[in-house]
Amino acid sequence: MRITALAGGVGGARFLRGLLHHLDSRPPAAGDGPHEVIVIGNTADDVTLHGLRICPDLDTVMYTLGGGIHPEQGWGRAGETFGVAAELEAYGAEPQWFTLGDRDIATHLVRTRMLGLGYPLSAVTEALCARWQPGVRLLPMSDDPIETHVVIDDPDADPAPDGSPAVKAVHFQEWWVRLHAAAPARQILAVGIDQAKPAPGVLDAIAGADVVVLPPSNPVVSIGTILAVPGIRDAIRATRAPVVGVSPIIGGAPVRGMADACLTAIGVETSAAAVADLYADFLGGWLVAPGDHGSVMPDDVALRAVPLLMTDLEATAAIAGAALDLAQELAGESAGR
Amino acid sequence: MRITALAGGVGGARFLRGLLHHLDSRPPAAGDGPHEVIVIGNTADDVTLHGLRICPDLDTVMYTLGGGIHPEQGWGRAGETFGVAAELEAYGAEPQWFTLGDRDIATHLVRTRMLGLGYPLSAVTEALCARWQPGVRLLPMSDDPIETHVVIDDPDADPAPDGSPAVKAVHFQEWWVRLHAAAPARQILAVGIDQAKPAPGVLDAIAGADVVVLPPSNPVVSIGTILAVPGIRDAIRATRAPVVGVSPIIGGAPVRGMADACLTAIGVETSAAAVADLYADFLGGWLVAPGDHGSVMPDDVALRAVPLLMTDLEATAAIAGAALDLAQELAGESAGR
Repeated sequence: MRITALAGGVGGARFLRGLLHHLDSRPPAAGDGPHEVIVIGNTADDVTLHGLRICPDLDTVMYTLGGGIHPEQGWGRAGETFGVAAELEAYGAEPQWFTLGDRDIATHLVRTRMLGLGYPLSAVTEALCARWQPGVRLLPMSDDPIETHVVIDDPDADPAPDGSPAVKAVHFQEWWVRLHAAAPARQILAVGIDQAKPAPGVLDAIAGADVVVLPPSNPVVSIGTILAVPGIRDAIRATRAPVVGVSPIIGGAPVRGMADACLTAIGVETSAAAVADLYADFLGGWLVAPGDHGSVMPDDVALRAVPLLMTDLEATAAIAGAALDLAQELAGESAGR
Repeated sequence: MRITALAGGVGGARFLRGLLHHLDSRPPAAGDGPHEVIVIGNTADDVTLHGLRICPDLDTVMYTLGGGIHPEQGWGRAGETFGVAAELEAYGAEPQWFTLGDRDIATHLVRTRMLGLGYPLSAVTEALCARWQPGVRLLPMSDDPIETHVVIDDPDADPAPDGSPAVKAVHFQEWWVRLHAAAPARQILAVGIDQAKPAPGVLDAIAGADVVVLPPSNPVVSIGTILAVPGIRDAIRATRAPVVGVSPIIGGAPVRGMADACLTAIGVETSAAAVADLYADFLGGWLVAPGDHGSVMPDDVALRAVPLLMTDLEATAAIAGAALDLAQELAGESAGR
């Protein structure tokens, strides 16, 4: 089975680990080659700090699937140390709200050096993955720099002449990490996305997939930005493969992260149904938690209720298995029409 | 007293620490302000590794005088850790013969970032020193990139048509750190030096000094490259200040480092007298070890024999004191002429 997944950070990475675990126990169909998983990773939360190009979502996927992730935290490296960060602080180097671990810094050094030599991010990511062997082909959504910025109120500046409060734009990481998404987002802007092109292999991975999967990643700043790269959403609409998603919302709340703050910013309710509605133009199937089974879904979306808490690898593998089962059901229906 | 010193790495830095210690016990002359020491640091062994701009000699001076140096080693940071380096090795990132410590990397990150933003190396060095408070004004010899390369035999390449062995040029750091200066140097080239200008403040520091001091740094790849920056040697020839030096050679051997390999490369004997001869056009006084007192010196160089082993801070301070005493003697003679 050729599976193409879109992914953000921690939630996406954990889901993918469960997916790979599930595939280990699911033999390929007769005549098929081994399962292949291609991951299209969000790069809109990338940021340059201390001169280092940092790709948090790609790295979270790479470390998680490659066995290097900090297991409890879900991001960053296991056994991490902070020798460099302590010194950067001693120098007063800004920003100090984003702490880089030593092990992690090595990844950013290799990436920054390769980018500086002219390699595109997709080639850099492939080179990094040559070490980590994540068991998937990890593609950045684009080789072009895209950075999400969040427009928030600026309490330190004077209001506009019409009395409306002054606003400022901060990098997504500043909003997320430093402000904990507590400053209400007036707008979320993916700077550079209009001019961006999908990275090599991305559109083919969508067109050639047997299944397209949306893990329970942030629908606005992860899946949303991937879909906003010109060409990607159209490719997903056009693919013959069924598209199945896993709701990141259980009841009225995100399982982790602060997706609710992002949904509020774009005027969308924090509910499993409202997120499905964001994908209504291509979504075939949607996994929700049992309590959300009564939600009113967009037309033509097949709803399945399964436990969605990724409490451990087996539970996560079961969710991934349910997603693939639903996709096969949809593919069978489609073939039978 | 306004003292301007040229300095390489470990030897220069240790001498300077002794100099500052000596000055603590030497009250300024009546009517003079506090002692001021300006250090013109060698930058020709600078190198870019893993995308980081590394200035080994400037950092050794800064760390030594700022209290951050690894005391036994004489270079690198005390309490250093190597989390980043282990990861760079796991990625197979080259070169692996130069191991960067985590604490040290923070310095290089700040420097590389500032250089990337367009700050000249002199401004970067000043910013780094704002943290370390080395007690001297540390100036790079030049803001222009200069890198010493060493021409050595290339045993892996075919000989030239005339039968002469194939040669290759390697960065000084590769020759020094990886090859331990064991591959005979056919030529030592300071790439970029012809187009380089002295950094702001360098020529004024030489012209305005009461004493110019040459610590026992490598006469070829440290003091030699500083002197080779267009304008610096002329300024030293022209200054009214006496120029006194400390021999880096005791008997027929360098006290530390591999200055002999460098001297051989430029066809100069490894002796206190031969090194003085390299400075003959401006040298006023020369401190040698007692056993070298019988050396035949260039004309007009006042020779003094004192113990030159910088075994501890007091011993080093005594050497620095002897250098300043000799300079004052020379200044008195000059005034009395």
